[in-house]
Amino acid sequence: MRASRLNITTLREDPSDAETASHRLLLRGGFICKSGAGLYLYGPLLQRTLEKVRRIVSDEISSAGGLEITMPIMQERALWEASGRWATYQASRTMLTVKDRGGQEYGLAPTAEEVVTDYAAKVVQSYKQLPVCFFQQHTKFRDEIRPRFGLMRVKEFIMMDAYSFHDSEASLAETYQAMNEAYHRAFGRCGLEAFAVEADAGAIGGSGSHEFMVAAAVGEDAILYCPESGYAANVERAEGAIPAAPAWVEPAKPHLANTPGHSSIDALVQSLRGRYPDLSAAHCLKCVLFVATVGTAAKAVPIAAFVRGDRQVNTVKLTNALNRRFKSPGAVTDLRAMRDDEIDGLTGSAVGFTGPGFRAPELVAASVSEDGPRRQMGEKVVVVCDERLRDARGLVVGANVPDWHVVGYSVPEHAPASMYFDDITTIVPGDACPRSGLPLHEKRGIEVGHIFKLGTKYSAAMGATFMAKDGTRQPFIMGCYGIGTSRVVASAVEQHHDQDGICWPMAIAPYQCVIVPTKSGDAAADAVTEALYRELLAAGIDVVLDDRDLKPGPKFKDWDLIGLPLRVVVGRGVATGTVEFKERRSAAVDVPIAEAAAKVIAAVRA
Amino acid sequence: MRASRLNITTLREDPSDAETASHRLLLRGGFICKSGAGLYLYGPLLQRTLEKVRRIVSDEISSAGGLEITMPIMQERALWEASGRWATYQASRTMLTVKDRGGQEYGLAPTAEEVVTDYAAKVVQSYKQLPVCFFQQHTKFRDEIRPRFGLMRVKEFIMMDAYSFHDSEASLAETYQAMNEAYHRAFGRCGLEAFAVEADAGAIGGSGSHEFMVAAAVGEDAILYCPESGYAANVERAEGAIPAAPAWVEPAKPHLANTPGHSSIDALVQSLRGRYPDLSAAHCLKCVLFVATVGTAAKAVPIAAFVRGDRQVNTVKLTNALNRRFKSPGAVTDLRAMRDDEIDGLTGSAVGFTGPGFRAPELVAASVSEDGPRRQMGEKVVVVCDERLRDARGLVVGANVPDWHVVGYSVPEHAPASMYFDDITTIVPGDACPRSGLPLHEKRGIEVGHIFKLGTKYSAAMGATFMAKDGTRQPFIMGCYGIGTSRVVASAVEQHHDQDGICWPMAIAPYQCVIVPTKSGDAAADAVTEALYRELLAAGIDVVLDDRDLKPGPKFKDWDLIGLPLRVVVGRGVATGTVEFKERRSAAVDVPIAEAAAKVIAAVRA
Repeated sequence: MRASRLNITTLREDPSDAETASHRLLLRGGFICKSGAGLYLYGPLLQRTLEKVRRIVSDEISSAGGLEITMPIMQERALWEASGRWATYQASRTMLTVKDRGGQEYGLAPTAEEVVTDYAAKVVQSYKQLPVCFFQQHTKFRDEIRPRFGLMRVKEFIMMDAYSFHDSEASLAETYQAMNEAYHRAFGRCGLEAFAVEADAGAIGGSGSHEFMVAAAVGEDAILYCPESGYAANVERAEGAIPAAPAWVEPAKPHLANTPGHSSIDALVQSLRGRYPDLSAAHCLKCVLFVATVGTAAKAVPIAAFVRGDRQVNTVKLTNALNRRFKSPGAVTDLRAMRDDEIDGLTGSAVGFTGPGFRAPELVAASVSEDGPRRQMGEKVVVVCDERLRDARGLVVGANVPDWHVVGYSVPEHAPASMYFDDITTIVPGDACPRSGLPLHEKRGIEVGHIFKLGTKYSAAMGATFMAKDGTRQPFIMGCYGIGTSRVVASAVEQHHDQDGICWPMAIAPYQCVIVPTKSGDAAADAVTEALYRELLAAGIDVVLDDRDLKPGPKFKDWDLIGLPLRVVVGRGVATGTVEFKERRSAAVDVPIAEAAAKVIAAVRA
Repeated sequence: MRASRLNITTLREDPSDAETASHRLLLRGGFICKSGAGLYLYGPLLQRTLEKVRRIVSDEISSAGGLEITMPIMQERALWEASGRWATYQASRTMLTVKDRGGQEYGLAPTAEEVVTDYAAKVVQSYKQLPVCFFQQHTKFRDEIRPRFGLMRVKEFIMMDAYSFHDSEASLAETYQAMNEAYHRAFGRCGLEAFAVEADAGAIGGSGSHEFMVAAAVGEDAILYCPESGYAANVERAEGAIPAAPAWVEPAKPHLANTPGHSSIDALVQSLRGRYPDLSAAHCLKCVLFVATVGTAAKAVPIAAFVRGDRQVNTVKLTNALNRRFKSPGAVTDLRAMRDDEIDGLTGSAVGFTGPGFRAPELVAASVSEDGPRRQMGEKVVVVCDERLRDARGLVVGANVPDWHVVGYSVPEHAPASMYFDDITTIVPGDACPRSGLPLHEKRGIEVGHIFKLGTKYSAAMGATFMAKDGTRQPFIMGCYGIGTSRVVASAVEQHHDQDGICWPMAIAPYQCVIVPTKSGDAAADAVTEALYRELLAAGIDVVLDDRDLKPGPKFKDWDLIGLPLRVVVGRGVATGTVEFKERRSAAVDVPIAEAAAKVIAAVRA
């Protein structure tokens, strides 16, 4: 390709709104052009990179047994009603919807479990056809609240989504593993250092899932990992033990303490320090109140979540814990903080002084109300406590009465019967790895892929069955698998750039090599340029000849920014029989003209 | 690929709702699967064919200078407001629209003139960068009233759309011609017999356009052509002369004729035959009434269109004629038949007896109203007459009074000054070719591509300019070009099938060859099968090995239906050193085992 025909349009200045390297460099290099909020046009250079990523992904997923198909972007509402996800996605407002002139409503593909399950039900009759796996690489949509970071968080993006169908969990496990390996190969071929972490399954659902992360400081996900055991998990899901609270001198018997206005953990601890000098936040029971939207009827359910005073409630874990409580994976469609003005009405408690309730109030001197600290919050409140506190004693808890706390609360003895336990605490670096017990470390990552064991969530709901070996009809056991094709590209830039621009991995570079003639018009140099260009083209190298009417300086700057892996400069060296060969991150070296093509070809094929 | 892994699911019976060969065979072969009205999932076999078509198209458009990009599907309303097409597409209701959670509205790409013009304005600054051409192959949407014919008329489809930018009409003409040639090469490589015809530019607009048609009996478009001159045009746009009306004995002076209840041309002619035995429909002036929606204010304008009594009004031509009248290419956003109950009120005339009005009513005996036939229809009515009738005399026309016509009307003498002339008649086979004057023939076709000279329609409206050679800023002169990628596939099936199934052209067949072993378990035969399979794979042939546990009969039926170009049967011939080689449309021949691979390779590369 001759550069004069490529409409190269680089920007000298960093765009003001670009916060990350990939956003900045992809804009500056003309790879992307904003067409609307969260909407990008992919320019000619990015198109080539995307196509290369697509082929690598397609190749690896095919070799793991996937059959490539294309599903419609417009998905009939009836399909989403059948799986029960229409309500979930309406509640979260992440799905864009469209109505046709006949009034029929559609979701714009955020993912395609419903469509593919419907397809499988039509084209797979018998266990003899299983396992089977279908995949596509197609545009997906998400009604993103706050699009940002260029291609990272957008309304429209390209995703590889695969769906496997099985007659046994063992068969699913086999494909899940094959996909895991295919992902590692695909990311590796794209030049990405990616690693798998345990992840939450979110709105997709299912019994297990792993995310594939690319380590990057700008990553939106926090990952906790143990170098010793190899354990790694998204913070949304990471398990682990938290260090025991330090010992303190507890009261012999629970008593009420007047804590006027001390509604925060910090203030509370400060106010009680006079009497209990060893008291710390770890001895308090923190109450966080939420309102959950539950079920297709969108019932508002008040939730009181309790974690140790020095810890945070993990809302992803809490949502899952509530779903388990309601015995339905997608029961909770929304979870929001309770507003102060709702607390009295919904919980029967008091803002800042909410507690779990007290099984034996007579143990506490009844100085603040008729029956001392209130027995419990309103009956409708779901009371959930982190499982790590199941046996905790000597705690400070709200008395459900303004300006009063109880000191010396014991969960096993005092907690009301309605309280249930689950893992709802956010694990932090330094907590103990669930495998090795050693401290967990943290790094940030960009999610580029995700694999899920779905089980029969969709097939059972949609009545998608096959004839099993024993002659009965059984719902498909399913897995699903996603790779953010356009995100892979952005992540590659995050991992491979320097102060001058992008440094594309060879396999996904838009072109592999550029030839820059710096003595155009010199007959000998021009002959070398043309001969080298033709030789590289003939060898199947993706080569650009920079025939633009520009000085060498701006040309070099452009190619450093655009980031092709190889550059050959044909200039004054021709007189002495050499050209200059340069790998993007190395110094230039002179090579004999006759060896230049071989040098490029070897570097491409390395 | 082993067939056991391909999830082949063929249907023995024709689907009841499939009206065309491509719809029927693509469904039966498992190429497509309905996912909703006008929405199809493309199965693994179709995916491969589509990918091959895509690459051919991409290859040819690139070689004509196109740079491949990807544009967003969601297109901001503001862009469509800027071009003025938001109103047009809302009126025609062909564009699907979506709102995001912030209330921002988008059109789902029916085409992408707005987005690409906005892009060009950002990345093309100077005439030095021109000409430049961007293209994509991406999903498009259309809110189809009545989806049908499988992939032919759907809500969602794949289209190649290219857009070229120029600084002169000459440059546009050059690219237009290069695209025309690229189209011919691309369709030819896909095995399609396609031909270009003059076409109407429709909602895209511009100064000239050609459609590329594939001849097919089921085609929705009628094409008129002249074998002598090479003229060919869509009937929507075809020009031509119509044979002169036969001579008849006209009255010396126009007079009123009582024609009670004779409101149709046929009844009218019958009723006047007693007095004028030579009278025919060709001597009548037919009035067809419409209501046009005009301009952004969506004003309803009554239209009276006049054509010869034996001819039809061409609504596409009429729309263009009205746009010319209103001096704005997209002025008319809708055109519908006037309802009977509107006629009195809107035209001031009478249902069934409307006429153009009469410049000199005193020439006609005033027996039916004070001043004879009414002078004209209401002032607000736009009166347009086919230009072929500019000099017509001796006509029978409605008197604008119930039950009366005027006989002996002369357009040049009697027509009111408000009447204007344009080409609004539908040309039919037998009419005279505008080039040769010989009779036009008709055939039916499927539109697979379209090219347009847009001029500055979009760039001027959107303020998309470049720095011209003379230093002034000029709007881009544009062209646009479309190929219905998924339609190409369906058209290929229409052109290439027989009673047993599809007969794919080699270049776009999902696989090129199938090996069918009919003596599985026989060690010698199995060895030949595997060796041949491996040899063909090694040679880069797209080969399927049918390892399914089925009898030969059903296998052969499947492959005839699926339509791969080549079949090799490895069976009893192995004992005597042969296998059976068969091209899809020819008889099977025995070939020596050692020559089988070479035979396949030669047929693929032929």
